[in-house]
Amino acid sequence: MLNDLPTVAQLLKGLQQVPYLASKSLYRVAEHFLKMDEQKVEQFCALLLKAKQNVVPCDICFTWREKNRACSFCASEKRDKQLVCVVESWQDLLAIEQTRGFTGVYHVLGGVIYPLEGIGPEDLTIEPLIKRVSQQGISELILALSQTPEGEATSAYIAAKLKETDVSVTCLARGLPVGSNLGAMDRLTVFKALSERRPF
Amino acid sequence: MLNDLPTVAQLLKGLQQVPYLASKSLYRVAEHFLKMDEQKVEQFCALLLKAKQNVVPCDICFTWREKNRACSFCASEKRDKQLVCVVESWQDLLAIEQTRGFTGVYHVLGGVIYPLEGIGPEDLTIEPLIKRVSQQGISELILALSQTPEGEATSAYIAAKLKETDVSVTCLARGLPVGSNLGAMDRLTVFKALSERRPF
Repeated sequence: MLNDLPTVAQLLKGLQQVPYLASKSLYRVAEHFLKMDEQKVEQFCALLLKAKQNVVPCDICFTWREKNRACSFCASEKRDKQLVCVVESWQDLLAIEQTRGFTGVYHVLGGVIYPLEGIGPEDLTIEPLIKRVSQQGISELILALSQTPEGEATSAYIAAKLKETDVSVTCLARGLPVGSNLGAMDRLTVFKALSERRPF
Repeated sequence: MLNDLPTVAQLLKGLQQVPYLASKSLYRVAEHFLKMDEQKVEQFCALLLKAKQNVVPCDICFTWREKNRACSFCASEKRDKQLVCVVESWQDLLAIEQTRGFTGVYHVLGGVIYPLEGIGPEDLTIEPLIKRVSQQGISELILALSQTPEGEATSAYIAAKLKETDVSVTCLARGLPVGSNLGAMDRLTVFKALSERRPF
């Protein structure tokens, strides 16, 4: 069927590179672009290129910033530079920002160590993080990585690297999510909630 | 947070127009494009524009075809032009093609009548379909629209319009999906499977 539509096949191949587009939606997204006005497609492309050109990672914390503006965290006077929260991605950072409960600054790792996928410490921003901790007067480093084996291993790797320094390394609390029901939770979460119980 | 990132906010707004991108994935997709090489972004944009310029709907059946090629259905000698299958979208057409069980041609409606969303018969390719049936010698019209109230209403609308002609109008069989289990199916499907039972 697609043999007769080489341009569409190429478009589908290009769209396949985009993450979080399930193969079922691929055709609908392709059709969406085919149905769009040519002018709108041009506008969309201009948007992509503009974002690519104007948005760069911050040299210190590796969050995104506009090229002509300072980083909204590192350059802010309202932010406590002594308190650094280490996250995997910009999306995780936004999740913490949405709580409005964090006044420190961030460090975006760019992922976790994942040997099976060929991701080693050198592929992440771990080295700049170690340098940042040793050069600046950081008092607390919060490890807010995924609760997965890889996330925990990455946390352990970073903590080991910082053993010699006097920064206090903490991690997020584990336990039952708000609004959860014991019976509906998985065994491991209940086990951790039980073994890490706290005074009421 | 996004106040400091106007270009990213614009990109997110542009991506919001793309269907089937859940708001949670939006940030990850935006980050995907920000992380891409500029050259790759340019290639992706070229792909979109090329698809937009080279791919047009067929004048007869409204499926997509390359500008410099004839429609792979309407121009094919292997296809039975007497048998027309009416589908909502190109994606539904692909689903039927994948069965390899249909040798007729298609008619892509472009959706279903949906008054609540402001989609009337004039927004779809119903008029060209009626013309096509009356002008060409079509013997059977298969209505393969969604099993939703709107899909059924659209089927009824088309069938009513063709009452005067001698085309035989059919629709897809309803019942239990292959591999399904009675207990796991919804009440309405079981009811329809029961009331439209057939000799074994």
